[in-house]
Amino acid sequence: MTETAAPERDTAAPVPAGDTTRDQLDAIAAAARRAFAVTVASTAAERAAWIRAAADALDAARDELVPIADEETRLGAVRLTGEVARTTAQLRLFADAILEGSYLEATIDHPDPTTIPPRPDLRRMLRPLGPVAVFGASNFPFAFSVAGGDTASALAAGCPVIVKGHPAHPRLSARTAEIVAGALVAAGAPEGVFAHVTGHETGVALVQHPEVRAVGFTGSLGGGRALFDLAQQRPDPIPFYGELSAVNPVLITPAALEARADELAAGLAGSFTLGAGQFCTNPGVVLVPAGSDFGERVAAALDASSTGPAPMLTEGIAGAFASGIAGLAARDGVDVVAGDPTAQQPGTGEPVVLRTTTAAVIADPGTLLHECFGPSTLLIEYADLADALAAVRAVGGSLTATVHAQPSDELAPIVEVLSEVAGRVLFAGWPTGVAVSWAQQHGGPWPSTTSTHTSVGVSAMRRFLRPIAFQDAPDAALPPELRDGNPLGIPRRIDGMLVLPAGVPGRRPAGG
Amino acid sequence: MTETAAPERDTAAPVPAGDTTRDQLDAIAAAARRAFAVTVASTAAERAAWIRAAADALDAARDELVPIADEETRLGAVRLTGEVARTTAQLRLFADAILEGSYLEATIDHPDPTTIPPRPDLRRMLRPLGPVAVFGASNFPFAFSVAGGDTASALAAGCPVIVKGHPAHPRLSARTAEIVAGALVAAGAPEGVFAHVTGHETGVALVQHPEVRAVGFTGSLGGGRALFDLAQQRPDPIPFYGELSAVNPVLITPAALEARADELAAGLAGSFTLGAGQFCTNPGVVLVPAGSDFGERVAAALDASSTGPAPMLTEGIAGAFASGIAGLAARDGVDVVAGDPTAQQPGTGEPVVLRTTTAAVIADPGTLLHECFGPSTLLIEYADLADALAAVRAVGGSLTATVHAQPSDELAPIVEVLSEVAGRVLFAGWPTGVAVSWAQQHGGPWPSTTSTHTSVGVSAMRRFLRPIAFQDAPDAALPPELRDGNPLGIPRRIDGMLVLPAGVPGRRPAGG
Repeated sequence: MTETAAPERDTAAPVPAGDTTRDQLDAIAAAARRAFAVTVASTAAERAAWIRAAADALDAARDELVPIADEETRLGAVRLTGEVARTTAQLRLFADAILEGSYLEATIDHPDPTTIPPRPDLRRMLRPLGPVAVFGASNFPFAFSVAGGDTASALAAGCPVIVKGHPAHPRLSARTAEIVAGALVAAGAPEGVFAHVTGHETGVALVQHPEVRAVGFTGSLGGGRALFDLAQQRPDPIPFYGELSAVNPVLITPAALEARADELAAGLAGSFTLGAGQFCTNPGVVLVPAGSDFGERVAAALDASSTGPAPMLTEGIAGAFASGIAGLAARDGVDVVAGDPTAQQPGTGEPVVLRTTTAAVIADPGTLLHECFGPSTLLIEYADLADALAAVRAVGGSLTATVHAQPSDELAPIVEVLSEVAGRVLFAGWPTGVAVSWAQQHGGPWPSTTSTHTSVGVSAMRRFLRPIAFQDAPDAALPPELRDGNPLGIPRRIDGMLVLPAGVPGRRPAGG
Repeated sequence: MTETAAPERDTAAPVPAGDTTRDQLDAIAAAARRAFAVTVASTAAERAAWIRAAADALDAARDELVPIADEETRLGAVRLTGEVARTTAQLRLFADAILEGSYLEATIDHPDPTTIPPRPDLRRMLRPLGPVAVFGASNFPFAFSVAGGDTASALAAGCPVIVKGHPAHPRLSARTAEIVAGALVAAGAPEGVFAHVTGHETGVALVQHPEVRAVGFTGSLGGGRALFDLAQQRPDPIPFYGELSAVNPVLITPAALEARADELAAGLAGSFTLGAGQFCTNPGVVLVPAGSDFGERVAAALDASSTGPAPMLTEGIAGAFASGIAGLAARDGVDVVAGDPTAQQPGTGEPVVLRTTTAAVIADPGTLLHECFGPSTLLIEYADLADALAAVRAVGGSLTATVHAQPSDELAPIVEVLSEVAGRVLFAGWPTGVAVSWAQQHGGPWPSTTSTHTSVGVSAMRRFLRPIAFQDAPDAALPPELRDGNPLGIPRRIDGMLVLPAGVPGRRPAGG
């Protein structure tokens, strides 16, 4: 994301001071380290209470926060109000998940002298890594920013968080951080468990800071790669969990097009223009049978829904979209189906639909298949399924891949290729909209993410945990999660067998 | 590990041809990629049969392989025979684990229109990454080499494996690879599922090869860091799971020393000299109360057990040990308690015990606290517990950390610091010896490993898997693990609740 100056002040939100200095960062990191001595030994019940307090405080401040967010992002009060609810529901889901306890992967092996080599008493669980740096995104000022999924999952795991706020919404970031930090500490969390810093150089220093043990990042390929490289080049490399760039291919089979062309056209028009196209899961390329009038139907759907230019997050993002889409449209073999790529207005994005062929994209995937952040989609006409799947492979790693098919279609070969390139495979839907749940996966092959983890959903916590095993420990020296009596009543694996605690409401001993 | 020339041929094992060429590597990688199209769709039952066939073939070839291994490593037939058994038991444990099915983390969320945002049908499991490169270690020519834990866990996960054999045992590597590849394919695995390559440059090309999706490595800090950097600098960075270097601190409390000094001295003498000290988990530093005669007791235990010079794996390793230990002994504040650091004989390692103080190591941890691969240990005298724990922290990331205490000792502050620096915390034991089980953790903070995973034990498979979610998929388009009827009878999480399949032998529905 291109960084831009903060807009003029016109609400009651505090104007952030200048960039965080190196001395301030060192003090914040030292406080986070001290807080970790408390959070690493905290119970899930304690952390759940802290996190729920933060969620409650954000809900209570919604009517204050949404106007600030709207001024800074121009995403509109309706969308932003919904995003606050998503953000606080996300915080509460992590609170629930740590109480359930499976996320610790508690595992007990009793001694066995018959194994080779002989087995002592071994007990394993996950343990928080330490202070985590979080880089907020521009496009979800609540759900992927200061109090978003990275922060929620790190706090739930037991890690203090230092957020580098996105410069596209500085006042919202500062005010959100103030509310979250206050609520956490008021609920009993240690001072220093949460902090907010600003400034590009501060972000660089944060990734390199000795006290920081992992990084969560959502943003651009260029910025993300640069920070990833810094994290890996440290004397002690640390995990860098980045969500960088995704084109999110969609494949429409001939049978599906035959059956419901207008429905698909309307669905695509709604999806790629949602939030002015500023979704990580925007459907950037759509494989359609050659020779159809699908593009014209998408154009008609845009007309019918009066989807015109929409304000973008920043002037810089709008400018990057305008130049990116104009460059793409000027390529040989690319036609404009809807919108005018060369007539974008400053600060806004007008929907653009382009059309090309599989031959063109396979010949030059580097040029035609990169993410163009904004309200555009590229229709790619294919001759047959093999041709379409070759183009999907050329797209490379994505957060999502979608197929629209009919019951008559053979899905297996399609699903296999979509599974190869994406972390989430959708059937008869559109990839925008990411539910926050136990089974969600928001992450896929490079360059969509930099790891084999998710940044959305319960298992996002695994990013901020590492395993530890205790050998022949006296029961009293063990964390309660691994003691003989299972005092916390969590699911555990004992001598290779999953064991659910008896009589705990909400857990089914059999079925499924 | 320093690479050395292969010894002269004097068994029936084939002499490997020259280094694998780039063309050969490309062909091997392409075959691995083709094999992946089969393994990614294989059932756990199929892969378990392949892996068990490899284990059976290695057991059957034991009497052929052990003499080759002994010639190349000088570790002795008794130890090497036991290592074959450990290696095949390890293969069979992974076969058992994939049949049990929990490793897939199968998770189903049914649709819920009341969540924010509304939740579609989401089903998530883990999926193999693709071809994996494995770099065998010198010090465990079976268990951490061609058919070792990295290979076993990658094959179990469904990934083809390309092993770069260690040059310290080239004939054993080639012959083991021949047996494993033959057994896998004879049992029905696809051609190309397993291959063996040689040569330093080949190893570099392997880490950079576009078809390789992850790397498992056990070796030195220098070599591992160089390959880690290459993996991260790729246009598409890939996970590099390296086990590099560990000092494995041991803390003996005054009460424990008072109660059983001779027993501890004998235990330490046995542990740091095991396999000529060539264990990743060698206890390299031991914190002892100041002013005790513990060092002299260790010296006496070495004498009593007649533990003298032992052959090391290669001339290069012996030479590195001799120069390393001589340099350490020459430092100010370091005394020699047993052995003569300056009189090591070529090709062998003679046990050396050194002694220093916490003040010396905290003043210069970079010099005194690095791994000195071979039969040595450094006793560090401490004044009080705070002093001892500060020295443990100065050691930094290790595979293991051990405490020897008495019931009268307060363990909590000790356990907290040991947990901070290590992946496995031992009580009243010695870190050499790594059981292969569900709860094992062989991996800790940098530089002991490069990731938040283990390289030994069932969860080592997680390194070679990534999550994938299916949204609103027709039941027939789903992998069987995620279908409604749970046809494979595996444990799953459904709408947030763990569900164990009913009536499956070996799983307990309640208890624990």
